[in-house]
Amino acid sequence: MTRRNIDLNADLGEGFGAWRMGDDAALLDIVTSANVACGFHAGDPDIMVETASAAQARGVAIGAHPGFFDVRGLGRTPIRETPRRIERDVAYQIGALQACAALAGTRVTYVKAHGALANLANAEDDIAEAVARAVAGVDRSLAFVVMPGLPAERAGLRAGLRTIREIYADRAYADDGSLAPRSAPGAVLHDARDIATRVRRMVEDGAATTLSGRRIPVGIDTVCVHGDNPGAVEAARAVRAELEAAGLVLAPFAPY
Amino acid sequence: MTRRNIDLNADLGEGFGAWRMGDDAALLDIVTSANVACGFHAGDPDIMVETASAAQARGVAIGAHPGFFDVRGLGRTPIRETPRRIERDVAYQIGALQACAALAGTRVTYVKAHGALANLANAEDDIAEAVARAVAGVDRSLAFVVMPGLPAERAGLRAGLRTIREIYADRAYADDGSLAPRSAPGAVLHDARDIATRVRRMVEDGAATTLSGRRIPVGIDTVCVHGDNPGAVEAARAVRAELEAAGLVLAPFAPY
Amino acid sequence: MTRRNIDLNADLGEGFGAWRMGDDAALLDIVTSANVACGFHAGDPDIMVETASAAQARGVAIGAHPGFFDVRGLGRTPIRETPRRIERDVAYQIGALQACAALAGTRVTYVKAHGALANLANAEDDIAEAVARAVAGVDRSLAFVVMPGLPAERAGLRAGLRTIREIYADRAYADDGSLAPRSAPGAVLHDARDIATRVRRMVEDGAATTLSGRRIPVGIDTVCVHGDNPGAVEAARAVRAELEAAGLVLAPFAPY
Amino acid sequence: MTRRNIDLNADLGEGFGAWRMGDDAALLDIVTSANVACGFHAGDPDIMVETASAAQARGVAIGAHPGFFDVRGLGRTPIRETPRRIERDVAYQIGALQACAALAGTRVTYVKAHGALANLANAEDDIAEAVARAVAGVDRSLAFVVMPGLPAERAGLRAGLRTIREIYADRAYADDGSLAPRSAPGAVLHDARDIATRVRRMVEDGAATTLSGRRIPVGIDTVCVHGDNPGAVEAARAVRAELEAAGLVLAPFAPY
Repeated sequence: MTRRNIDLNADLGEGFGAWRMGDDAALLDIVTSANVACGFHAGDPDIMVETASAAQARGVAIGAHPGFFDVRGLGRTPIRETPRRIERDVAYQIGALQACAALAGTRVTYVKAHGALANLANAEDDIAEAVARAVAGVDRSLAFVVMPGLPAERAGLRAGLRTIREIYADRAYADDGSLAPRSAPGAVLHDARDIATRVRRMVEDGAATTLSGRRIPVGIDTVCVHGDNPGAVEAARAVRAELEAAGLVLAPFAPY
Repeated sequence: MTRRNIDLNADLGEGFGAWRMGDDAALLDIVTSANVACGFHAGDPDIMVETASAAQARGVAIGAHPGFFDVRGLGRTPIRETPRRIERDVAYQIGALQACAALAGTRVTYVKAHGALANLANAEDDIAEAVARAVAGVDRSLAFVVMPGLPAERAGLRAGLRTIREIYADRAYADDGSLAPRSAPGAVLHDARDIATRVRRMVEDGAATTLSGRRIPVGIDTVCVHGDNPGAVEAARAVRAELEAAGLVLAPFAPY
Repeated sequence: MTRRNIDLNADLGEGFGAWRMGDDAALLDIVTSANVACGFHAGDPDIMVETASAAQARGVAIGAHPGFFDVRGLGRTPIRETPRRIERDVAYQIGALQACAALAGTRVTYVKAHGALANLANAEDDIAEAVARAVAGVDRSLAFVVMPGLPAERAGLRAGLRTIREIYADRAYADDGSLAPRSAPGAVLHDARDIATRVRRMVEDGAATTLSGRRIPVGIDTVCVHGDNPGAVEAARAVRAELEAAGLVLAPFAPY
Repeated sequence: MTRRNIDLNADLGEGFGAWRMGDDAALLDIVTSANVACGFHAGDPDIMVETASAAQARGVAIGAHPGFFDVRGLGRTPIRETPRRIERDVAYQIGALQACAALAGTRVTYVKAHGALANLANAEDDIAEAVARAVAGVDRSLAFVVMPGLPAERAGLRAGLRTIREIYADRAYADDGSLAPRSAPGAVLHDARDIATRVRRMVEDGAATTLSGRRIPVGIDTVCVHGDNPGAVEAARAVRAELEAAGLVLAPFAPY
């Protein structure tokens, strides 16, 4: 009997110039896919090459993590760009990381939108389609990581892309399948044990748990964890251990 | 008897955001290769896609024109970067343009360094090698435009790249084959007729003319013209007409 | 009998690095106040010093024209910044121009918000108050240019600032006193004669004309004209001539 | 008998956007003057206001710390700008911090050049004069921190500025009074005790110690310490304790 695969992804390479953010070294021993910032909201060519190289050395797949042109706001500022500009900005960032990956002797296998851009792509069809068009326009073989049931997934499917369905390890969902706002009580989980247990249940059940207690059936291909503080790294480690204990095989959905 | 080919190249897409520079539309009817700015010293994803698209529509080949991270100085400010950073910055820019070209339905066929970066690559071996490594690391099939006899050509050959030898239409040469400084009397030609005549002679002779009157034998694959003022466009047109009158075939050295 | 004063203002110094925008030299012979970009959406220290210097040489007052941190979008992209960040960004830009003006031997006498930031400050009280707090926090003697009847005017008055009420020469108004959207038929006037005639009527009547034909009584201290194309410069010149023909004295509301 | 005053200065506010650098909170309990980054190589309006505010709350004076336009390189990349551009860039940064300080209810009392710009101003007269002209042009009452005996001090004196002579706590000097290159053996001290003892001796002797063992007599008004790693903070604390033990009074050279 084959055991089921699952992927763990996290944002990496979110430094800029002399500044660093998050514990990339620790995360690379935990995750199977690394979402690499592409210079618009974090990351620069040095960091991109080094992150690609470190990921490859550990068998971790790398994906482009394009965001808004907003280094100061780490890509979290809502910016009202046109879909056309978004399409081109996303393409630019994917290509930039592809070249940095080539320098590092590896290649980009997927794309996942970052921050405020991801929020918009999960909420508005024209933004979602702009991102999907960029991915397909650059390389139709790239996988596209999406939140299931939202505009980005629909756009990815329409664009003929392989869509990878993702859940967030430490966030609760609203009843429409979007993330519950951080301000809602219980929207963000902090305890490593709670996070790991909930992820295991979601993956085994094939369902996301909402704040109101509903279960939304979703396919789950990858679980997003964080590494921006020591507690987050601990939680990521707990998630991995719990999934392995449940008999799942941790593996990249789109290996190099 | 086959007639000899020659290429005309110019810098295009040197706007940024709402600003434009040079008469790209006019140049695209004259040149056969367009050096496209990649966002570090000029250009942005919108302009890059539109320039790639306009070039393709006219059968003009496009090359990446990477420069220093210096929008304010248009890439002309001498910056003392490390070769390692230069290698990565150049790779990043090539990849970014490749993706923008893909969106436009075309592809990048060559690389030529811009401005202060080009000056350094023509003068210092470690910078030249950093640029050549970036080109080869991203895509070994890309051609590499160089000034013959200088460090960039040697680096390109060592990296196993197809090197394309370039002369400048409106500049006189120093005896070592580098460009005579703009401040030297006669270093910059302004008259369209003079420029066209001199280019024809250089191409027919296979030699660059120096300020001191020496002739330096060089292979010439492409001639660089400018379009940043009405006189420059007129001169570019005169160069093309003169080369056609001489029986040469104007064609991209690296067509799409 | 003293004749009434009126001010003409326009955006100047909207170049960046090697790029230029608008005909600043022509405008400086027409307007009495120059809104100078401060480096966030256009302008850089060189351009700021040179614009301040050129304005002073012609007796034109200068004001800070702060905008969003968005050079690529020329400050026209709607960005959802927090009021706190806006307050600080505006203060930063005012101070930067004050120093550049000091180098040029002149000084800043007023502030007017630019582009998408101005649109927000005319629509939302908390944004308007952030801008007004920045002005008052940097220098309480600075005048504050506002559209009459909208949040920015209220915020300016509450902050104890001298508020200067502005109308746009070439734009029609909606019934609430805001600018009619550019897409509405008749929202943007193009003919120099029409523009000049309408401005004269508005200034003489003390009322803005809306698209629906209503007259909104407003105090008018300054008229905003443009210079980003030859037609705009011609219209600005016509406005000045018409106001002088009507017996008004063209003079800065806040001279150096 | 009055006891002699001495100042301790350090670079603060060197974060950018979401990134932080150094232990500002710890340093503010040690130093008497804070060199605040102004947005060109580090710092942004939020950080500048918050740093000014935190400094004021502890009685620490603030100075503008202008650098090259080089966030990615933290202002350490040698850039060959023209003196004219440097003058204007420095003025811009001083004004920006003045405004941020005003928002925080305090004011800027001095200027000290940062990183690669400081290195150039300590080596080349025209760069030093550009910086001094910017300081004097913005506000003649600002003090100017310089390394004694080098071009910046001469330029400051010629510009009529109050010059403040500085030594570095953890660096050895070359025989010409410049800093010995970091690569030279013994050029950088690491042990907190060694650093504190050497600073005390230099301050008491009125002389900088060179790598070759020479003593260069210099006036010393302020001592520069660092806070970018735990060891640096410990060394800064040791320097302060040692100077207090020697009977000196730690106080800003230019209090608010």
